[in-house]
Amino acid sequence: MAFLSDIEIANQNKMLPITDIAKSIGIDEQSIDLYGRYKAKLDINELERMKDQPNGKLILVTAITPTAAGEGKTTTSVGLADALHEQGEKVVVALREPSLGPVFGVKGGAAGGGYSQVVPMEDINLHFTGDFHAIGAANNLLAAMIDNHIFHGNELGIDNRRITWKRVVDMNDRQLRYIVNGLNGKTNGVPREDGYDITVASEIMAILCLSSDLDDLKDRIRRIVIGYSYDGRAITAGDLKAEGAMTVLLKDAIRPNLVQTLAKTPAIIHGGPFANIAHGCNSVIATKLALKYADYVVTEAGFGADLGAEKFIDIKCRIAGIQPDAVVLVATIRALKLHGGVNKTELSKENVEAVVKGMPNLLKHIENIQEHYGLPLVVAINKFPTDTEEEIEAVKRACAAVGVEAILADVWAKGGKGGLELATKVKQIVDEANHFQFVYDDEDSIAEKLTKIASKIYGADGVDFTNEAKKELKVLTEMGFGKLPICVAKTQYSFSDNKELLCRPQGFHITVRNLKVSAGAGFIVAITGTMMTMPGLPKVPAAERIDINSNGEITGLF
Amino acid sequence: MAFLSDIEIANQNKMLPITDIAKSIGIDEQSIDLYGRYKAKLDINELERMKDQPNGKLILVTAITPTAAGEGKTTTSVGLADALHEQGEKVVVALREPSLGPVFGVKGGAAGGGYSQVVPMEDINLHFTGDFHAIGAANNLLAAMIDNHIFHGNELGIDNRRITWKRVVDMNDRQLRYIVNGLNGKTNGVPREDGYDITVASEIMAILCLSSDLDDLKDRIRRIVIGYSYDGRAITAGDLKAEGAMTVLLKDAIRPNLVQTLAKTPAIIHGGPFANIAHGCNSVIATKLALKYADYVVTEAGFGADLGAEKFIDIKCRIAGIQPDAVVLVATIRALKLHGGVNKTELSKENVEAVVKGMPNLLKHIENIQEHYGLPLVVAINKFPTDTEEEIEAVKRACAAVGVEAILADVWAKGGKGGLELATKVKQIVDEANHFQFVYDDEDSIAEKLTKIASKIYGADGVDFTNEAKKELKVLTEMGFGKLPICVAKTQYSFSDNKELLCRPQGFHITVRNLKVSAGAGFIVAITGTMMTMPGLPKVPAAERIDINSNGEITGLF
Repeated sequence: MAFLSDIEIANQNKMLPITDIAKSIGIDEQSIDLYGRYKAKLDINELERMKDQPNGKLILVTAITPTAAGEGKTTTSVGLADALHEQGEKVVVALREPSLGPVFGVKGGAAGGGYSQVVPMEDINLHFTGDFHAIGAANNLLAAMIDNHIFHGNELGIDNRRITWKRVVDMNDRQLRYIVNGLNGKTNGVPREDGYDITVASEIMAILCLSSDLDDLKDRIRRIVIGYSYDGRAITAGDLKAEGAMTVLLKDAIRPNLVQTLAKTPAIIHGGPFANIAHGCNSVIATKLALKYADYVVTEAGFGADLGAEKFIDIKCRIAGIQPDAVVLVATIRALKLHGGVNKTELSKENVEAVVKGMPNLLKHIENIQEHYGLPLVVAINKFPTDTEEEIEAVKRACAAVGVEAILADVWAKGGKGGLELATKVKQIVDEANHFQFVYDDEDSIAEKLTKIASKIYGADGVDFTNEAKKELKVLTEMGFGKLPICVAKTQYSFSDNKELLCRPQGFHITVRNLKVSAGAGFIVAITGTMMTMPGLPKVPAAERIDINSNGEITGLF
Repeated sequence: MAFLSDIEIANQNKMLPITDIAKSIGIDEQSIDLYGRYKAKLDINELERMKDQPNGKLILVTAITPTAAGEGKTTTSVGLADALHEQGEKVVVALREPSLGPVFGVKGGAAGGGYSQVVPMEDINLHFTGDFHAIGAANNLLAAMIDNHIFHGNELGIDNRRITWKRVVDMNDRQLRYIVNGLNGKTNGVPREDGYDITVASEIMAILCLSSDLDDLKDRIRRIVIGYSYDGRAITAGDLKAEGAMTVLLKDAIRPNLVQTLAKTPAIIHGGPFANIAHGCNSVIATKLALKYADYVVTEAGFGADLGAEKFIDIKCRIAGIQPDAVVLVATIRALKLHGGVNKTELSKENVEAVVKGMPNLLKHIENIQEHYGLPLVVAINKFPTDTEEEIEAVKRACAAVGVEAILADVWAKGGKGGLELATKVKQIVDEANHFQFVYDDEDSIAEKLTKIASKIYGADGVDFTNEAKKELKVLTEMGFGKLPICVAKTQYSFSDNKELLCRPQGFHITVRNLKVSAGAGFIVAITGTMMTMPGLPKVPAAERIDINSNGEITGLF
């Protein structure tokens, strides 16, 4: 079998009408709205209709500390779901929507890969059903209303040096990171410093993904803190009377999207918040709906298990009142070699010793999942063509030594058929007793919460706060935000806040440089290091290679 | 009958499934993609399939020089189409898509009004099928690629003081009119002056509306001039290799949208370029498709007949190779009173004398349509509740004196039933012989074209060029753009370029302050006065009143 590109594989596939996919999990045609033949939006009233239906089992797919290419969580999630589907189970895979911007940069699509993809992949990676554009519009309406309020007399006394609400666009556009706007005289606004984030970094994205329904969405939007007044009061979207119109813009975006995998497994794809300054999970509504439709729901969370899984548990599960039944921890031989000290350019060469040397990273994640999250797990080795038998065996042995099974998942090359063993194991562990727990309690102070996350999950010796962070800690607590969960913005490449410290660093402190409240989403963001919330394009962006012919066939997309 | 708001009327209406509407004009279910139950995108291959089908009659709805509230062209277009539908004719109304931004400002929706509306009006006025967001994304991808090129070494030598390509957002956001971006050091771009337009002002919008198919779309995008190099060369989107990816982003946006009127008349709504710096008409593809599907196609063009109709004929018809069979000239008693010298606050009071005094405006438009465009016409008096019998009779008499029939169109209050007499007359005049002609020839120089438009259509004594315009005239001609049609950006409130000169001004000159090429769209924009391409919000924006309840019911939208 020659290697085909993702888009070639996707194009060879014949999709089922989405109405058939819906039917297969008991969704009535009247409860969906079609977006073309292969995409549909679900009715959020379905949650109410199905409220007495028991929930299926929730399987969280997370990963070890990743390389820059990622460990393949989405691919593994899709492959696992396809394997369960192949075994005759009623299964739904619940994923995040990809962002449009990065498609034109380096990354390409984010809809799985190889023979474990969600389709129609072109649409999913482009505008899809318009959710991100709607989020951008709601975000930018609020921004326009802020500056319009200041322009027309600034009754609320907004300090235009302290506006934290940025504008957004779903594009990799570094030129917009730092701007000055409102220039050119008194009819054109009031000059101030401003900047753009990419749409997925908008608090609206996090809010949409944590809301339980339209009312909750509007309430959360009302609570958004957009900045501060000259006398230090927090100014909210509610103060600007923006929440109604913003919610109107999101009335369809709040509805989860139904698509399918190459193997015709139902896939619910909805929302996609940043995994650093936000919680990095698909929407609560999508996950809850999926649990009603299926006996097994496979979902994922951004970055490694120190970030994605922690936030999934401490933010998403806490707010939504749900909990996973088992965890799949994805590892690649390549990443283990990286953690074992191998140079990035040498990862394709066999190096069993390095794999073994990198295992402490994997083992620390196992420890976290078992001891701190209290969940049963299986390790999935996401197979790459360059992996050798010896390397794979080394991982299996090291895991077995701590009583955990590591299973090869060859889903990129073989689809669901490459994940059958993994699926069988998952079905076994979801029924194991678990002692699910949060890493910290609501009642812990912000500093206590951070200390618990850092010491338990990261293995740090302590947390340091800069003076700025100390001041913010005090202010946010006084403002009544002290009971909110914490969203740590930290490098995904290390347990520590220093991306150079690979494997399992020890004897380090985490430095919290700044704190900020996402009052609508309902968490405190603790920032360690510099966070990139607006990517740039590379010298030769993927956009230069992307094309479409007169028949509408796209090339170069991935 | 109590007065209901547009949204209340729309909500009382029971729509047909859009598949039924499609079927009613012979569109197969396989040739459309549904966007929910009441919206669909048409297949652009339909044009090829139906190429041997004879065209229906094309009726252009235009207006006299309007008041700030507009003359009701969309409402009249919908009402006329509904009247033809009521008479058993096969009719399609082909309209522009409204822009999202203004919905949150003053204006409210732009999907007709009263009992002559297109529905689902909420969706049409919000994100609809995502066309404008796609246009924004394509526009902003090009912008990101320009600055990315400069950032990575600027091989093309783009002069970043002479970039004419702006970023866009579909929001009324005056704060973004003039900005400086690329600030904060060498990793964050290269500082320069920049600015935002509202999405409808993007050249991509004009291009989409003038393209005949995907290939033509891509060719036009390739030709876009984004600015100039340090040595004065025009830099194009093709130089940046952006046209393929931009076309990919527009692959669905290029497909016309099918909806319905309250009376179940098929409505094709597609595209919506600005009527000042662009040509202000719906898409060529939509109009051509509509002509294949129906015996009568009712369409409209922005602003008064001096701008909208002139551009419809000299730009859209010239490029598309189509021509209208008749014109409906919409007038309101209120506007005639304004032209007759009545103060804006006094327009609701009966004043027959002022109506008569305002008639020269209407008569000049009649002269233009008959003599310069060579088309048969009927005047439609768009009825307002405050109009009196005497006022209406005065208009009819004055029109009859020049051999033109003026017919009362009571379509806002009565829907199609209020437009039956108008429909009957329209069916009569579309069969009249016409001597359709353009206002100028391709071979005329830019200055000659402008002089012909100004003298024939505006009734001006001449055209003056500022020094800057003279320089541009020379440069654009040397660059080979001299044969393109002209798009005059002029106030819509006067035949002249001074919005205070109402009725039928005489003895005036037009001053062209600047010229710019829209090389992708394929026209030269001649700018007279300052053009607002980014609106602002009023002190109390409509957004503050807009809300949605837990059942998803929207209030305050219009």
